[in-house]
Order: sequence, then structure tokens, then C-alpha cells
Amino acid sequence: MEQKGELVSFRPDIKVVDCTLRDGGLVNNFEFTDEFVRDLYKANVAAGIDYMEFGYKASKEVFNVEDFGKWKFCDEKGIREIVGDNNTDLKISVMADVGRTDFRKDIGPKSESVVDMVRVATYINTIPAAIEMINYCADMGYEVTINIMAISTASETELDLALELLASQSKASVIYLVDSYGSLYPEQIRRLADKYLKVAEKYGKSVGIHAHNNQQLAFANTIEAATIGVSFLDVTMSGMGRGAGNCYTELLMGFLRNPKYRISPVLKFIEKQIVPLKNSGVVWGCDVQYMLTGQTNQHPRTAIAFTGEKRTDYDAFYTSITNYE
Amino acid sequence: MEQKGELVSFRPDIKVVDCTLRDGGLVNNFEFTDEFVRDLYKANVAAGIDYMEFGYKASKEVFNVEDFGKWKFCDEKGIREIVGDNNTDLKISVMADVGRTDFRKDIGPKSESVVDMVRVATYINTIPAAIEMINYCADMGYEVTINIMAISTASETELDLALELLASQSKASVIYLVDSYGSLYPEQIRRLADKYLKVAEKYGKSVGIHAHNNQQLAFANTIEAATIGVSFLDVTMSGMGRGAGNCYTELLMGFLRNPKYRISPVLKFIEKQIVPLKNSGVVWGCDVQYMLTGQTNQHPRTAIAFTGEKRTDYDAFYTSITNYE
Repeated sequence: MEQKGELVSFRPDIKVVDCTLRDGGLVNNFEFTDEFVRDLYKANVAAGIDYMEFGYKASKEVFNVEDFGKWKFCDEKGIREIVGDNNTDLKISVMADVGRTDFRKDIGPKSESVVDMVRVATYINTIPAAIEMINYCADMGYEVTINIMAISTASETELDLALELLASQSKASVIYLVDSYGSLYPEQIRRLADKYLKVAEKYGKSVGIHAHNNQQLAFANTIEAATIGVSFLDVTMSGMGRGAGNCYTELLMGFLRNPKYRISPVLKFIEKQIVPLKNSGVVWGCDVQYMLTGQTNQHPRTAIAFTGEKRTDYDAFYTSITNYE
Repeated sequence: MEQKGELVSFRPDIKVVDCTLRDGGLVNNFEFTDEFVRDLYKANVAAGIDYMEFGYKASKEVFNVEDFGKWKFCDEKGIREIVGDNNTDLKISVMADVGRTDFRKDIGPKSESVVDMVRVATYINTIPAAIEMINYCADMGYEVTINIMAISTASETELDLALELLASQSKASVIYLVDSYGSLYPEQIRRLADKYLKVAEKYGKSVGIHAHNNQQLAFANTIEAATIGVSFLDVTMSGMGRGAGNCYTELLMGFLRNPKYRISPVLKFIEKQIVPLKNSGVVWGCDVQYMLTGQTNQHPRTAIAFTGEKRTDYDAFYTSITNYE
């Protein structure tokens, strides 16, 4: 595998994507205060972050609006209340899940929206539907990326076919390597990143990485992928995200050598907004139960329930998820 | 760099070293209950851990015995109260700092001791004194390892000279790569591990790794080093150790494929002893202040003080340790 760039260099193709509201919203049901969101936006702009993901563009037919904070749905009006016309270098993104987004109804032309990028999330078996949505959004004028989820349980052959299909048939400009269960080791991430890059580059596309921190590998996997050429790097403030959370913004800011990135606004945001949020009882981050679902390559739902019940009987939990002994 | 072993294989040369009492003792002043130490010993035996480090063999001339828990000094009698004659496969280790150990007085012949291994810790500038201590301990019948600390602030030339000197002149069987400040990235760890291995193998020695978790890289760096041939791997229960702590035993147990290793006794120990210890207010682990000293390649003492004061003004802390702005 060829290395692109050294520790002391920087690559202008690197783009940092803040997913705090979107992946973090899975922790607190998207119930962020407007002040939190406004401070996050300002911090991202000041830190030189490239994209900020505001949340999901979820279907109001599938989900009841009363049951979630507004960033589950990301109405244009709500985003504009925070960013105005967004006269900054920070681009704005929303995520749309295949099968859970009324894209023809809820995603209008880019010319009428402050959103710059739509990130489509799909499982391998819904890729044809993903391509339809990707191409619709691209034709509407948006940058589009595609996240293929749960690849650690897919066969290598399926994944190869999926990548070729997405790269050749879709108008997505970025294909994301996603470690949904936080189960992948750096060695595997490098092999997968190499695979993604080979297909993506054939079609003039880029590759991104979205890591989870179950085994304290989100940051390591992100920088290892970056080192061999992955360029879209997902982060969240203090790793806020579902279960074990994500790659920490503050860690990546300390690693990247691009002089546009600044850690100080990130630190100020953490002390002002993340510390009180944690003190209020919102819980995420690497704990034993998440390591165990990561090690055994499982969805973290059992670990999330275990966390919610404030249990610490880790060995009983391990037995329940493995039945090995 | 050649890879030794694949993810699905196991290498019989791997040795796991539990440093919970030694590095963890730096968190709680070595004040562990006998029940904690006995449970840890039993858990290590049951988990198939290869070595357990009981603490330091510190000089009673340099340190006042009244000021520390007993594992700062590791008297033979104290260890035997826990392990008897240690009729198990687990070997017992103690650490001895150059200049802070009365080795001729406090380290007797192996034939009279239940200790199997002495780990000598040195800075680059005290290597001649380290060699004297290593060879004394080896002649007394112990396995001896050498930890070279704070290499991230040493020059490459000095390090090369130090490695050659230690490998050629000392009777240590293992040379440890130590990331004292948790500042090294996987890319650097691979380069350094390769360097250590080349020198060590020339003289028939092995290489170990002792990682710190400032940047959430302790586990990643440990397994990356292992993958290219490092064989002595230091861990602590839930990462307990000075400042940001170490590589988590429970993470490494989930990674290694050697069937002798078992995670269940580790999980039981954590729920019985580590959860109450944390609830009692003993604090370690990766937090923003440790990331910042790691990123800037500094000793964590400022971050430890910041933690002790329960401060969260991270940006002011950053300014104070860098004076960049």
C-alpha cells in the first residue's frame, strides 16, 4: 500500500466533517438547545472544519415529529435560523437513510437550500434504492456521498460488487468506509481503504471514513485510513455519538498539519457545551459493553440497553451476547 | 516492514504483562487493598496473563515508607502474602528505576525470591547505570527487561546509540519501546518497533511495548507493534495508570487469538474491583488535558495537576502549556 503524505506534511484534499448533531443526536434523541447548535456552528467555522452535518432528513411519514428533536428532520427553516445564508467556508450537510427519507418531497433544489451536501446511508441490500436517491440529489444540485453500513458482516464478494455498482452507476462524489460496529482493526481498515480507493479512483471519486470507538480505535483507524489516501474524515466533539461514539474532533485537530485547522475553538466549545451536557447525564463513549460488541462484531443495541440500565455485570453481559460459556 | 502473523493466527512468542499495580499505583499512591491485589492475581492467572508486575522496588533511602502503599517497595514478604510460592504459570515482576533503587541491598538472589523478572526503567542519559543494574539482576538469576523512557524527546542518533549499547552490553532479554507521553502515532510506532526489533534480534533479544493512552492510541499502538514482531505487551485493567492510563487488558484479550487467553476473568475482576475503585473517586483515563500533552509531546504532569483541580478550562490549559497564542 502506498502512503500519501507524511506526518509532517498536509494534504489539501483532506476534508473534516463534523457529525456531532447527527451521530450525537442518536444519544439524546436530537434534543439539542439552539444555543448548543449555534455554538457548534461557530466553533466549526472558527476551527476550519470543512462540513457540518446538522442531522437527518427523516421521513415524517415514518417517524412522528413529536417524538424527536428537530434535527431528526432538518427542515430548511430550522437550519437557516442557525446559519442564516451561511456566508462562511463551512459547508452544510444532512444525512438521508435509504427507505426512511421522502426525498422527492423533502429534498428540494439546491438553489433554494442552504444545504450543500446530502449523505446517503445504505445497507448493501438496498444499494439500487440508494443509487436512485443519490442520483436524484445530485441532479438537484447537491454534493452527494454514500455510506455503506455494516460492511463488517458482509461478504467480501458482495462488498466488491456493491462498490463497483456505486462507483459506476451513482453520481456520488465520495464513498464512505463505515465501521458501524467499531469492530475493525487498523490492519483491516488499511486493507478496506485500499480496496475502496482503488474502485473510487477509477471513477474519479474520493473515499471517506466514519469510525466508531468501541475498541478505542476510531482515531487510529481514521488517521491510518487518511495516511493511505482517504480524504473525508468524520469526527464529533468529544466523540459524541451512538454507543461508544466516534473519532474525537479534538484528537484529529491535533494530528492534522493543515494550517487552516485550529484546535482552540474546539476546546472552547467542549468546555462550554460538552462538559455541561455530560454533567446533565447524557452518556456516550467507550465502555466495556461496547468493547465486547465491537470485539464480537455485533450491532451495539444490546450494549446501549445495558448502559441505559446502568449495569456493570460485564461478564454476564458477555455471556448473554456470545453464549460461548 | 514484514508482518508477523495475521489477525486470525496467534504467535506463541506473545507475552502479556499486567502492570495494573505498578502503573496504576501511580494513580492511588499504591494504596491497594490486599483483597484487590489477591483478586487481581487470581484474575491474571485465570486469564492466562503471562506476567504480573506487583509494583516498584523503590529505595527506602530515597522514599519514605510511610508516604506510600506497600507496592511502592514490593518486599518479598508482601508478595508472598498474596501468592504463597506462586505455584502457577503466571510469572511475577517488579520494576526498578535507575537511581531510585538500592539494588545491591534490596534485590537478593532469585533462588530466595518468588519474583521472576526485574524490569529496569531508565532515561537515555542513565544507560550506563542501567546496564550495571541489569547485569547485577541477571547475575542474581532474574529475567531482566529494560524500559527506555521518554524517547519521543530524544534524538534519533542518541536512541540508535542507546539501543546498540543496551543490546550489546546488557544481559536484558527484552528491550521495551515506551511511549511515555502518549505522543506517538501508529506510523511512528511501526518505524520505532522496526528499529528496536532489528537491534534486538541481532543480539537474540525480544522487544516489548508499553503504551500510554493520551491520544486513545495505546491499544492501536500495542497491536500494531505486535503485528510486526513486538512480543511483550503491557496492559492494565481498564487501562488504570498514570494520567491517561495504558492499554486496556480487556481490549487486548479480545484481540489475541492465542487460546490460552480468556477475557471472562478480566471482566469479573473489573466489575468486582475496578467499578468500585472508580466510584470511590480514583481517576485515570483519556481526557482533553491528556490529549493536549500527548499532542504536544510533553510529560503529563501539568495535565495530572489540572485533573486534580477538577478544572475544565481546556483552552486556558492549552495556552498555558504551549504559549502559542
